[in-house]
Amino acid sequence: MKFPGYFRSSSSYRCRIAFNLKGLDYDFVSVHLLKDGGQQKSDSYRAMNPQGLVPTLEVDDQVLTQSPAILEWLDETHPEPRLLPEDAFEKAKVRAFTQVIACEIHPLQNLRVLKFVRESYGQDQDGVNAWCQKWIGDGLAACEALLARQNNGADFCFGDIPGMADVYLMPQVFSATRFGVDMSAMPN
Amino acid sequence: MKFPGYFRSSSSYRCRIAFNLKGLDYDFVSVHLLKDGGQQKSDSYRAMNPQGLVPTLEVDDQVLTQSPAILEWLDETHPEPRLLPEDAFEKAKVRAFTQVIACEIHPLQNLRVLKFVRESYGQDQDGVNAWCQKWIGDGLAACEALLARQNNGADFCFGDIPGMADVYLMPQVFSATRFGVDMSAMPN
Repeated sequence: MKFPGYFRSSSSYRCRIAFNLKGLDYDFVSVHLLKDGGQQKSDSYRAMNPQGLVPTLEVDDQVLTQSPAILEWLDETHPEPRLLPEDAFEKAKVRAFTQVIACEIHPLQNLRVLKFVRESYGQDQDGVNAWCQKWIGDGLAACEALLARQNNGADFCFGDIPGMADVYLMPQVFSATRFGVDMSAMPN
Repeated sequence: MKFPGYFRSSSSYRCRIAFNLKGLDYDFVSVHLLKDGGQQKSDSYRAMNPQGLVPTLEVDDQVLTQSPAILEWLDETHPEPRLLPEDAFEKAKVRAFTQVIACEIHPLQNLRVLKFVRESYGQDQDGVNAWCQKWIGDGLAACEALLARQNNGADFCFGDIPGMADVYLMPQVFSATRFGVDMSAMPN
């Protein structure tokens, strides 16, 4: 498996955690989002991934994009250990948690969105941080509420072993720390 | 099935299309995002859905949130007709398409984000429309590239019958029209 991604991208980070939990070898190819005016915008990268976003997974002559689709594919084709529960309701709850991060938080802290906020709305670094703190903070508060509802002191988000929710949460906590989000009211 | 949602919300709209494609009865409960200061922010709604977002699905004493999780649950538990292909690679491609919409476009045109852009960055309706046109336009251009790559004149996104990709695309095209996005270069 060839895995073009960027070290600091949350969505690349999610996939790396999953590869490692499943003990899979992969060949990481660095696509630097800031060098050369953004290597993800190159013609060669876009031929593979028309959106010009990281990550991409190349496997068996197929090209997969979008980390949630990559992660679902990975769990279906390499089910040991499983990242999603088998029960349909339990699975829906874990997926809903991951989507709070993937659909409500992550898109708003994306590099191209921060660039737009900076350039079109004249925000300096403090302004960009305030934008990130707002959306990451609101989203993680929702995650906290979901975890508080069912966690019962487990070591991981949904039980005693790491699963799909943890795969999404860890990179988001890394980002939250980077942008100075106050997580003191989020014990879970 | 009880389905609290909002008529104009893309994520509620996705679920309604899926319920109807599968011929399922559901009891739509209106949660008006603009009335009463936002009915989704009420204590009773938040007790069910801590994020205060629509939609929610109540079924068999369970509460499901986040439309992608609801749609995956629906396709697993009510597989006729299937909305996702059976083959793992084909499924990943359809999911990636839906995630361009769910993770890259939709979160940026969300009501609370537009409110923030309006209030914190002093944007008037034209400014808000420009924000929406930027992100919906970029995202739908990526969708166009994905469809152009494999569509071959089929009636629907990924073949001759409607599936998960169409469930996501139709509400997004509705929104694009509403915000005046130029789709003239997007024949697919």
